[in-house]
Amino acid sequence: MRKDPEDMDIDIKRIAELLHTTEQRIRGLLKRGTLHSTPTHHLILERSISKIEVGTAIFPWETYEVVWGFPKIHRAMMLEPALRTHFTTESVAVEEKMNGYNTRVASINGQIVALTRGGHICPYTTEKAESLIPEKIFTDHPEWVLCGEMVGPDSPYAPKETYGIESLQFFLFDIHEKKGGKPLTVAERQEVAEEYGIQSTRLFGTYPLNEAHHKIREIIQMLGASGREGVVIKDPEMRDPPLKYTSSQSNCDDLKYAFTYYHDYARSFFYSRVMREAFQSVEWREGPAEIERRALQLGESILKPMIQSIKRVQSGEKLVENVKIRVKSLKTSEKFKEHLRTLGIDAVFSDPVKIRDEYLIKIQKINHRTNDKTESILSGET
Amino acid sequence: MRKDPEDMDIDIKRIAELLHTTEQRIRGLLKRGTLHSTPTHHLILERSISKIEVGTAIFPWETYEVVWGFPKIHRAMMLEPALRTHFTTESVAVEEKMNGYNTRVASINGQIVALTRGGHICPYTTEKAESLIPEKIFTDHPEWVLCGEMVGPDSPYAPKETYGIESLQFFLFDIHEKKGGKPLTVAERQEVAEEYGIQSTRLFGTYPLNEAHHKIREIIQMLGASGREGVVIKDPEMRDPPLKYTSSQSNCDDLKYAFTYYHDYARSFFYSRVMREAFQSVEWREGPAEIERRALQLGESILKPMIQSIKRVQSGEKLVENVKIRVKSLKTSEKFKEHLRTLGIDAVFSDPVKIRDEYLIKIQKINHRTNDKTESILSGET
Repeated sequence: MRKDPEDMDIDIKRIAELLHTTEQRIRGLLKRGTLHSTPTHHLILERSISKIEVGTAIFPWETYEVVWGFPKIHRAMMLEPALRTHFTTESVAVEEKMNGYNTRVASINGQIVALTRGGHICPYTTEKAESLIPEKIFTDHPEWVLCGEMVGPDSPYAPKETYGIESLQFFLFDIHEKKGGKPLTVAERQEVAEEYGIQSTRLFGTYPLNEAHHKIREIIQMLGASGREGVVIKDPEMRDPPLKYTSSQSNCDDLKYAFTYYHDYARSFFYSRVMREAFQSVEWREGPAEIERRALQLGESILKPMIQSIKRVQSGEKLVENVKIRVKSLKTSEKFKEHLRTLGIDAVFSDPVKIRDEYLIKIQKINHRTNDKTESILSGET
Repeated sequence: MRKDPEDMDIDIKRIAELLHTTEQRIRGLLKRGTLHSTPTHHLILERSISKIEVGTAIFPWETYEVVWGFPKIHRAMMLEPALRTHFTTESVAVEEKMNGYNTRVASINGQIVALTRGGHICPYTTEKAESLIPEKIFTDHPEWVLCGEMVGPDSPYAPKETYGIESLQFFLFDIHEKKGGKPLTVAERQEVAEEYGIQSTRLFGTYPLNEAHHKIREIIQMLGASGREGVVIKDPEMRDPPLKYTSSQSNCDDLKYAFTYYHDYARSFFYSRVMREAFQSVEWREGPAEIERRALQLGESILKPMIQSIKRVQSGEKLVENVKIRVKSLKTSEKFKEHLRTLGIDAVFSDPVKIRDEYLIKIQKINHRTNDKTESILSGET
């Protein structure tokens, strides 16, 4: 039976040991709610604290286990100097950064759980992980945490048609150990993926550090042209932390999305993306024609979705994000509805449609702030 | 002699009377620093409080006098519904909104002072006001406050070549009484301007409320084409507060400026201007070609100045804003240097150059945050 931390029936000492810290600190974190319990009876860390990443999850179930939060990957703004100052290695491995949502999959007490970035168990992702990841990997290596990107059209967080995936696919990009958090090297992870038949993110190659920026530019432009996101650049031995770098198309896609729901997203969201465009243009020594092309794309990514949203509200429509999930069990859908409610997301679930052995369920996510703001400006608000 | 409020040698009772409030409230405001003294020995209100606008200035000199803060003018986002809901009048007067800086000029104890929006006495603007505004208006009407825009290339805050002005010109747009704050009507103000030979902002005309948005669109497009800012729409009797509305070119000019010093300006600056573009496009029912033209202009206004700034820093230049002032007395320049320091602006003054009976002084304002941020990204910061 699981223990319920609400009843404080948790072993502070064991948690302190797991997190390599003191009991007093754990008590403080619990008291302030920085470490708090979830409806699924585990504890999550609300924000990063010294040496422990946000989203770290502790399972005070029969055995006490920890899944460390997935560290934020820094972004190269100017690629060439960033590579030079960031890496201490002679070469770097360049892998595709896919556009989906991040999940960490682990086996806790023999039960597979798939965690969101924040550390919540996502029931939908868990059902998908159970069928996409062979159980054997966890019976062979119960101490492993598989980090990957969930990608495809049946994604309730970031639906994408780009990759030619039918429903939802798991792309492994990192394996580390529960206890110490030590990662496998790039080569080891690739081997494991092959051995167990798990899809891995694409490795473009390993390049000498001082030449990598030329190669990455080529890769980024090729990826951008087919609407893909970008790359993650890694120390092959996984000692230096990775860096990410994205295509202009991906920045603009983000802007299109953000400006569709322009009043729901943080202003800094688009500011940072606009900055990336300028630095990429300078680094690539673009001429007037290339800058003009980039400016038009940027301007359109901002203006067109906003105009479309305003027109929609003007014609009496509600601005909703349409996503969908495909589940084997209707119970997963029920649990997922509960999960979205926990996350504070307002969503309307349609009736399930049976397709072969699964149910397709359409979900409308409602972005209230943009709807309300647009309506009030249209009726004369100044 | 002026009284120094630092010594608390001020008459709280008289200030309370001037502001139509209680002595207790004034004491509270002084204690919290919301009402505080300046190096020029008057008091200014740091932020708006119920019924009293930020920038309100109290002069506890021989006679106690108040100059009310200039109220924020609301902006129409969608013109037609905004006019309809905002005004209770049958017609509206449409005047040009000029692109300079706001000042309030008054005579306190027979001494002319020109105040910044925040309520500080600007020594430079005061010198200019003394020569641009005939003293007679204040001997005839010592109770009047003249509100206007200071416009031209010799503006240390917002230099503009657009208007064909040689140095700096004062454009009167509002007159109100010190005591009650009651404004003159639009027609009265025009008459006064003519009588005393003071330049007034241009009145395009007075239009029926339900037709005004058509007229304003024409005016805005005409103004935009010559790089001008926009209009202020007024109740001719000045009972309803005015509304402002600006051209797309002006929004884009603001963006160009903000993105030149992209890390010094608030992110919300950018966001609000982009929103204006989308609503104007929807209200004007623009087709695909017009939207594309607008998107290109928007994208260029954002991207080009950033690229230029990055390149400048890359080539070892410092990003500075070059402005200039033209003064009769070098003492004004000294006082103005002090004034900028009070406002927290880092500026380097060049040696004065004598031109006819005046001195031209170039000023470099330094935007540290953008300089520092660009330098660190260029050297590999992620």
